[in-house]
Amino acid sequence: MLVDDQRMARAFDVVVLGAGPAGEVCAGRLADGGLEVAIVEEHLVGGECSFYACMPSKALLRPAEALEEARRIPGAAEAATGTLDVPAALARRDEVIHDLDDSAQVPWLDDNGITLVRGRGRLDGKLTVRVGDEVLEARRAVVVSTGSDATMPPIPGLAEAEPWTNREATVAKTPPEHLVVLGGGPVGVELAQAWRSLGSAVTLVESHEHVLGREEPFAAEEVEQALGDAGVDVRTGIRATAVARSDGKVTVTLSDGTEAIGDELLLALGRTPRTDGIGLDSVGLGADGPIETDNHLHVQAEPWLYAIGDVNGRALLTHQGKYQGRIAADHILGRAHASLVYGGPLSPRIVFTEPQVASVGYTLAAALEAGIDVEAVDADVNDTAGGSFYGRGVPGRARLVVDENRRVLVGATFTGAEVGDLLHAATIAIVGEVPLDRLWHAVPCFPSRSEVWLKLLEAYGL
Amino acid sequence: MLVDDQRMARAFDVVVLGAGPAGEVCAGRLADGGLEVAIVEEHLVGGECSFYACMPSKALLRPAEALEEARRIPGAAEAATGTLDVPAALARRDEVIHDLDDSAQVPWLDDNGITLVRGRGRLDGKLTVRVGDEVLEARRAVVVSTGSDATMPPIPGLAEAEPWTNREATVAKTPPEHLVVLGGGPVGVELAQAWRSLGSAVTLVESHEHVLGREEPFAAEEVEQALGDAGVDVRTGIRATAVARSDGKVTVTLSDGTEAIGDELLLALGRTPRTDGIGLDSVGLGADGPIETDNHLHVQAEPWLYAIGDVNGRALLTHQGKYQGRIAADHILGRAHASLVYGGPLSPRIVFTEPQVASVGYTLAAALEAGIDVEAVDADVNDTAGGSFYGRGVPGRARLVVDENRRVLVGATFTGAEVGDLLHAATIAIVGEVPLDRLWHAVPCFPSRSEVWLKLLEAYGL
Repeated sequence: MLVDDQRMARAFDVVVLGAGPAGEVCAGRLADGGLEVAIVEEHLVGGECSFYACMPSKALLRPAEALEEARRIPGAAEAATGTLDVPAALARRDEVIHDLDDSAQVPWLDDNGITLVRGRGRLDGKLTVRVGDEVLEARRAVVVSTGSDATMPPIPGLAEAEPWTNREATVAKTPPEHLVVLGGGPVGVELAQAWRSLGSAVTLVESHEHVLGREEPFAAEEVEQALGDAGVDVRTGIRATAVARSDGKVTVTLSDGTEAIGDELLLALGRTPRTDGIGLDSVGLGADGPIETDNHLHVQAEPWLYAIGDVNGRALLTHQGKYQGRIAADHILGRAHASLVYGGPLSPRIVFTEPQVASVGYTLAAALEAGIDVEAVDADVNDTAGGSFYGRGVPGRARLVVDENRRVLVGATFTGAEVGDLLHAATIAIVGEVPLDRLWHAVPCFPSRSEVWLKLLEAYGL
Repeated sequence: MLVDDQRMARAFDVVVLGAGPAGEVCAGRLADGGLEVAIVEEHLVGGECSFYACMPSKALLRPAEALEEARRIPGAAEAATGTLDVPAALARRDEVIHDLDDSAQVPWLDDNGITLVRGRGRLDGKLTVRVGDEVLEARRAVVVSTGSDATMPPIPGLAEAEPWTNREATVAKTPPEHLVVLGGGPVGVELAQAWRSLGSAVTLVESHEHVLGREEPFAAEEVEQALGDAGVDVRTGIRATAVARSDGKVTVTLSDGTEAIGDELLLALGRTPRTDGIGLDSVGLGADGPIETDNHLHVQAEPWLYAIGDVNGRALLTHQGKYQGRIAADHILGRAHASLVYGGPLSPRIVFTEPQVASVGYTLAAALEAGIDVEAVDADVNDTAGGSFYGRGVPGRARLVVDENRRVLVGATFTGAEVGDLLHAATIAIVGEVPLDRLWHAVPCFPSRSEVWLKLLEAYGL
């Protein structure tokens, strides 16, 4: 057996475990830096995000968004009186996810000289990864980027009812007649709105007082209102106490004694890092909870081990996983300054509903809780000249959270139709620590909605 | 007469000459600072921009933009198969310009305690403005914000042919059957595309090799291509040598011996500061060319006189006029640091065609000409995950111009469908002088088109 094992062993500089966006970016940067890299993937190269999350959910939301915007513009509206074509929208979604075929992603690995090893990988002691019978030896490092799974809470009957997770909810071939959504975070609100726009009846159950509980209250209220206006039955402040499926229907018993009955049940109650079954025990690490890392994405007890993306629990966002992938790669390559500067719960983030919610840094409440001396200023995104042309009638608001001692931004939120690309300006202002008195001289263009910056800085007294 | 004059004289802290955006913003900020302000306007409160420029031109462009975007999204496309409704588009344009009635703007002045004096104002010596028979005395300052007119070059027959300027071209009640546009700057390309989308045949004549000569060549080429694809007859590298109107047709003789014949001729060959007839001679200043100002918008020879907006020739952009208005007001109010930091030809600017062209700072050519040691990096805006959902099929490119010595951005250009709001991030990075190595940690959200920043910084080697 020992002889066989040695025959099967292949050596690389770095072995990356998991080919989602974080793993791919890390592997690509390592290969670009001249290292020999293997990447191990059990399912689809491209990962959850490309096939079962961000990409298909945006594909499902976009048709209604584009159509509604055209219908808000006199001249275009009269040309856009038809009905949203659900099969065409779903066919485009299938195109975006390449019909769950990852062969389009593979040439990129080849071109970068990265060896793809298909199969379930697990750590097998120091610098070693086992994939089935094959052993991959890492000369320098192993990077774990196995991602996360939808959290399955211990609600009686839930597991047996075979609920949808993001996976089934993003790739479903037809809209369910009635979809019950458990959880009003980003995944829950996006998919509730998407399927509603494609014709499903939707009930959304959120245990907190409002959906999007980590965002500014005004953002949460706007999204909740939009869901309600679209006909989603939004039920907040109650939780599921039991689930049962029979005769093709799923019945959710709620804490207020009522029931929600649908054809499908979507579980959107958070994510659990995929640490189970990846051999963490073989290097003396526990599998409960995320893998702890330092600012180099390094697992401190093991100088050869890194963990990036959802599995480290820092920020469950694709772009943050990719950022961590770049930093881990740079650290392995021995580059200076390869350290996280800005991320975690402060990471920039966009909820792609209509209105969109784009935010970065602290909300007012989070800043106060963190003990920062802040002032918040608000302005109406639609109360700009640009608001005459874009997103008319969709609520839109902006808030800046200012650190009064340092006189820099520490948080920003924008809501409104397609405001996502307004966010990066705030991210740069925050990460760049641009003083407010300097920011005042960065003049947004007339007539764009970016002029909301003028109103915000004026509201601050500048 | 002397007695009469005195009886008619009213005194204010500041008299603002011209109620366009620059004048209005300046007056508002002065009033907010506790000063007694009069604003003099001969025509419409709100100025060229609100009634005859940015606002109506965007209103004319927006219907086609929104409709085309819907038509690029499967699912929405099938619902948007009708024809653009020209009367509805024009009615919305009329709504945007309030049917050329400025009464909606007036309450804002009243609310801010600003006295509106209607009539043609002219300087009449130091700290004095005459409006017809009325004399306005200024205790502290006079601010000239009279704007600009379309430039009328000395082409034989041009003036007699009664060409349209931006005024007629933005408020026309019906699309001309055939519009000939002289000049391929922002005004020319926007209005050529707008009227083409509303059904006019359009010929565009530009004397330089390409339209939008001050922007990056790739941006100019993309817009030129888009105009051509839409059926605009774009004729570059030739100039008008004579113009004649007869039988309702206007004939433009061109330098290559050909002719362009249309129903209307739009003059879009630049702007001339409105310095004529505003009494500059009464304070010893000449009226040829823009009013020269220092960085406080101050006319140096006359410590009480300021000039803001188009009339000083610094940057013929509404948002820059407003910025100057804020600075002049702060300087009059004696506030510290009331000085221009970033503007002039480097000002951020958006051309609202499809593709849009959004740029700030130097182009590569302009930076090299200025003797700055720069490197430019390019990336494709559509080659982002966000590009799967927005502006599909519309060309889109981005360029950063990096100062190699200071390692900061000094220029940025974005093209593509509705990329305007991507610009402010670059403006903040440039004005905030955020080091590139810091900018690398400002992570744009997946899947937004702002991720083009990743590609740009990667192309730079970060």
